[in-house]
Amino acid sequence: MNHPSARLAEFAAELKYEDIPSPVLRRAEDLMLDCLASVLAGSSARPVLSVARFADAMGPTSGPSENMVTRRSSSPLFAAMANAAAAHMVEQDDVHNGSVFHPGAVVFPPAIAVAQALGRSGKELLTACVAGYETGIRVGEFLGRSHYKIFHTTGTAGALAAAAAVGRLLNLNPEQMLNAFGSAGTQAAGLWEFLKDAADSKQLHTSHAAANGIMAAYLANDGFTGARRILEGAQGMGAGMSRDADPARLAQGLGSRWTVLETSFKYHASCRHTHPAADALLALIQAHALSLDDIARVEALVHQGAIDVLGPVVDPATVHQSKFSMGTVLGLIARHGRAGLPEFDAALNDPAIAAFRKKVTMALDPEVDRAYPEKWIGKVRVTTTDGRVLESRVDEPKGDPGNTLSRAELEDKTRRLATYRNAATPEEAEALIGRVWGLGEVELVGAFVVGVGVLG
Amino acid sequence: MNHPSARLAEFAAELKYEDIPSPVLRRAEDLMLDCLASVLAGSSARPVLSVARFADAMGPTSGPSENMVTRRSSSPLFAAMANAAAAHMVEQDDVHNGSVFHPGAVVFPPAIAVAQALGRSGKELLTACVAGYETGIRVGEFLGRSHYKIFHTTGTAGALAAAAAVGRLLNLNPEQMLNAFGSAGTQAAGLWEFLKDAADSKQLHTSHAAANGIMAAYLANDGFTGARRILEGAQGMGAGMSRDADPARLAQGLGSRWTVLETSFKYHASCRHTHPAADALLALIQAHALSLDDIARVEALVHQGAIDVLGPVVDPATVHQSKFSMGTVLGLIARHGRAGLPEFDAALNDPAIAAFRKKVTMALDPEVDRAYPEKWIGKVRVTTTDGRVLESRVDEPKGDPGNTLSRAELEDKTRRLATYRNAATPEEAEALIGRVWGLGEVELVGAFVVGVGVLG
Repeated sequence: MNHPSARLAEFAAELKYEDIPSPVLRRAEDLMLDCLASVLAGSSARPVLSVARFADAMGPTSGPSENMVTRRSSSPLFAAMANAAAAHMVEQDDVHNGSVFHPGAVVFPPAIAVAQALGRSGKELLTACVAGYETGIRVGEFLGRSHYKIFHTTGTAGALAAAAAVGRLLNLNPEQMLNAFGSAGTQAAGLWEFLKDAADSKQLHTSHAAANGIMAAYLANDGFTGARRILEGAQGMGAGMSRDADPARLAQGLGSRWTVLETSFKYHASCRHTHPAADALLALIQAHALSLDDIARVEALVHQGAIDVLGPVVDPATVHQSKFSMGTVLGLIARHGRAGLPEFDAALNDPAIAAFRKKVTMALDPEVDRAYPEKWIGKVRVTTTDGRVLESRVDEPKGDPGNTLSRAELEDKTRRLATYRNAATPEEAEALIGRVWGLGEVELVGAFVVGVGVLG
Repeated sequence: MNHPSARLAEFAAELKYEDIPSPVLRRAEDLMLDCLASVLAGSSARPVLSVARFADAMGPTSGPSENMVTRRSSSPLFAAMANAAAAHMVEQDDVHNGSVFHPGAVVFPPAIAVAQALGRSGKELLTACVAGYETGIRVGEFLGRSHYKIFHTTGTAGALAAAAAVGRLLNLNPEQMLNAFGSAGTQAAGLWEFLKDAADSKQLHTSHAAANGIMAAYLANDGFTGARRILEGAQGMGAGMSRDADPARLAQGLGSRWTVLETSFKYHASCRHTHPAADALLALIQAHALSLDDIARVEALVHQGAIDVLGPVVDPATVHQSKFSMGTVLGLIARHGRAGLPEFDAALNDPAIAAFRKKVTMALDPEVDRAYPEKWIGKVRVTTTDGRVLESRVDEPKGDPGNTLSRAELEDKTRRLATYRNAATPEEAEALIGRVWGLGEVELVGAFVVGVGVLG
């Protein structure tokens, strides 16, 4: 039990609430609220409803766990499958930059579903979620950049993240946790091939990872064994699915480095490359009290990567494409003060946004480009209709660890996401916020969204 | 729709009973009986019961599909998960040599479960199973030898095989079938790392593949899309999980070459890689009337794959691991003249077998290695205690297509497997045989083992 997989398993199995620094616990609550808001925002999407219908066809349609897509209950497996499918749908969920991994979507749905089924406390749930983050992010870092070129790390590392969280809730001992890792890793999958067809696989990947993690942990609890070196072994994930796997990353800083704190929130509902300029424009507009009509021209001073990715999108034809249009994003900031899901839905048919797009250009900025990717600096230069030239900069986009969202900002984002397409009522959104902020004090994790008494 | 994945999907979607030659259909029945006998033989094993308990905890405990492990019914997903876990347990299920793939374990359990749920006929079930074999075997051939070094092809190609069979029962059109392949392939997984720990993952692999295939096909039937080139695409299975993937294999001989007929039955209850040497030793022992004590040394001359899979198993700690121990298998042949389930159960505590293991070595044989995997040549060199050096070879192990089992031999094998550890009564074994031989004539696929009226 002294190889990297085993040390990681031991950490996940033995993590205690008391050992987790308070800022990590508070951030875990922040990330949970952010994830559940994303689940609701994605809950009416076609691919998510397909997964939910499959769950209804194959599993029980009542049970101890909350299915936020159908607003009914089910066994933990099916509740987690549906919720995890929804969590990654609207591209507003969290991201860990170093591992290029979206932990929330694969940690919270299975952990919440199992905590509800086992009658765990809020503190136990939070502890389990931290174990899931710290495990999954390190597995993603271990798998490395070569892995990410072909595999969707959120699907692959996600299975381990889910197993760690669920295993902690089941009180697996280190040996059992290592077995759970073995069973999760040998089910881990998810290929980027779907991207070029714009197929629905992303929702399947999070759903699959959540289900695999639950199955792996429950099996381990029942004595089912798995490979002890599923990550670093000669026929393990690193050997089969990476060319630069680094086992040293697996146990790096366990108990002292908290990757939960390194995880970023997405504030705007657009490609991350647009965020620095959007934040800089927002700051400028607020400082000078400008409206859309006051702006004659915007120059976004960006890194080369932004030009590569966003440059081709001149006249977006779909809502998804418009999230890669710098002109659209800055137009929404100028018009609404934000670039969220409803703003994007309305942008395509908005002549004011189309007109604003023509006022926006991108230019390579040497300082911004040099700092990237360690720092994502945002700079804009605005020419106003009355002839002023104004400049603005932000050193870290909103949502990154050094410029994280305040609870007020998270609540605002939650209200917008939760009520997107009437997924939840404003009252339900408020109740959700209250339940997550109060989670540390509850003896028994109950429903977050569905009505009292629905959980069987 | 003219790339290899699409042609394979079209074939699987459009395959008709009338287009399948009668010998292929009869062999499919043979393979089904052989598989169901293996399911029963594995039904009381600890890892299988773990999977069954998980299925009971998460899924419905009554439904339209037959769970042969619990002798109850469930939804198709959970019935298939439990039965598929059992099918590969006792290492007596079929194998396709060229793809090093065990199709039965991942085709029949999901196909039967879904046929029962949808009320399909025996002819429809057989057609679907042939579609599953023809698909999965070609996917295994496509993934190639480099894949098999790290991945358990039965887990990976198995997901596609299951999706094809279930997709055919759902009457998916070619476009939908291609989507099902995309969703199956992006969930496909299974690593050999568990072997060196003698862990339980093999049962998880077949269970997982069956479940993935069902989910992929049901989702496709509901409009959920998948990658169109999940196999041969630049970010697909071949790119991520193989170094010698050959897209030309995917559509090779569709409709004229029937890989069902190329599939071998397992005669010995051990890893297939041990069979050629076991048959060669058996022939040598019989020809020279040798006993265990006459043998000073055995050199098994094998292909590299045998060394890769069997090499790590030096001192088997479990019955299952002993099936991957060349020394144990050859010891049982020398001691009992066969290596069946009861012989393996007794082998672990048999000092004569432990002593014999030390006399056995494996060596790479260039001729055997060149012929593999198309031919599995067996060669042994025996040094007797009185100093003779004897050699023996077989060109085709028993159960291979050119040396296949007769229906009488299959019935005999079925009676032994089905009643192993009292899984079924002799009467139930006879009834099972009758149901499979009569399958082509039934209008509605019913239960094969559980009593009448159990299916809901």
